[in-house]
Amino acid sequence: MERGVFISLEGGEGAGKSTQIKALSNYLTDNGIKNIQTREPGGTPGAEKIRDLLVRGDVSLWTPKTEALLMFAARQEHVEKTIKPALATGKWTLCDRFADSSIAYQGIGHGLGMDSIESLHQWVLGDFKPDLTLIFDLPVSLGLQRTQGHAVGENRFESMDVSFHERMRKGFLSIAKSNPDRCIVIDATKSENEVTNDVIKVIMAKYGKMIHGQSC
Amino acid sequence: MERGVFISLEGGEGAGKSTQIKALSNYLTDNGIKNIQTREPGGTPGAEKIRDLLVRGDVSLWTPKTEALLMFAARQEHVEKTIKPALATGKWTLCDRFADSSIAYQGIGHGLGMDSIESLHQWVLGDFKPDLTLIFDLPVSLGLQRTQGHAVGENRFESMDVSFHERMRKGFLSIAKSNPDRCIVIDATKSENEVTNDVIKVIMAKYGKMIHGQSC
Repeated sequence: MERGVFISLEGGEGAGKSTQIKALSNYLTDNGIKNIQTREPGGTPGAEKIRDLLVRGDVSLWTPKTEALLMFAARQEHVEKTIKPALATGKWTLCDRFADSSIAYQGIGHGLGMDSIESLHQWVLGDFKPDLTLIFDLPVSLGLQRTQGHAVGENRFESMDVSFHERMRKGFLSIAKSNPDRCIVIDATKSENEVTNDVIKVIMAKYGKMIHGQSC
Repeated sequence: MERGVFISLEGGEGAGKSTQIKALSNYLTDNGIKNIQTREPGGTPGAEKIRDLLVRGDVSLWTPKTEALLMFAARQEHVEKTIKPALATGKWTLCDRFADSSIAYQGIGHGLGMDSIESLHQWVLGDFKPDLTLIFDLPVSLGLQRTQGHAVGENRFESMDVSFHERMRKGFLSIAKSNPDRCIVIDATKSENEVTNDVIKVIMAKYGKMIHGQSC
């Protein structure tokens, strides 16, 4: 059986990832591609418990290094128990955030450094990375405006100051620049439908043959 | 102000560390040495939440790497928020388990390897280590027998199979052999009072001048 494709969706708060992951999943399903939607931090019962420690409470609850370690603890569970098994059975795996978020949030936002996070990634996951990463980009002010009304209590990251989010946005764009084969930047200021169309164009350009092969 | 001394107490389950840490703390207090008792995983409100994830639930709840990452996440908090501040104000810090437990449990018990844990330690804490480590050694069967009646629910590690505990015991002895300047093995099969006397002998041999200086 052919291994599934691993796609991560990245970007700052309010970039519309959760809407777009559903739209992409529906599109794949309509085209006969089995897929799962998952998210980080989380994606397994244990990792969701770690998520609770990360996304709730005071901004300064954890040191930046602890935050990075907790993220990678949850990610290790998620990769071994959800992502790899799904890919092995041919399912495409759509993941709302993955390791690039650790580079952007803890590496650049909190200042631990990209190299430091890359080295932790290597310890935890070796060279395991997504096949494709969609980076949803929009101005910080617009993103934070859109997050109003998100899950109550899960706002520890949203509460970090604007300069943190600005650093993070630059971080994602810098990741995209350093990884042109894997990352595509999507303009997330457009309407939901327009963004979905842009996502599908990217998917068809890269995986059109696979998708048409499956649906025949 | 002179920096405090950082002493870790290590060993398998039922080795009597919690009894001996209290006895050592009392001895130091009686001799005019300010000290704190703390424990791992735990030692800060956040790290105690991570402890809850680690010590409860099914043996196979976490992958070995996740377990190591959670241990070091808790340790990072503990070092930055409890241990370093206490040492900086001259307090001796007595810690029930520290990084050697990660080498013995996850490195050797779970087979991740000593070098792998050392490399994670380096990422998290650099060269920060205890000044003195007391390793309480006793046969696994005796240790497990003694743990009966310990805190209800906090038995995830105790429930691991005997061969895990045997590997771990050898691990601690191997750590002691590789770090003769820092580690002292204490025979924990003796009575509580005899073990306390042995501990105090070690402390007086290494820090007698400091202790007598303080108490004058």
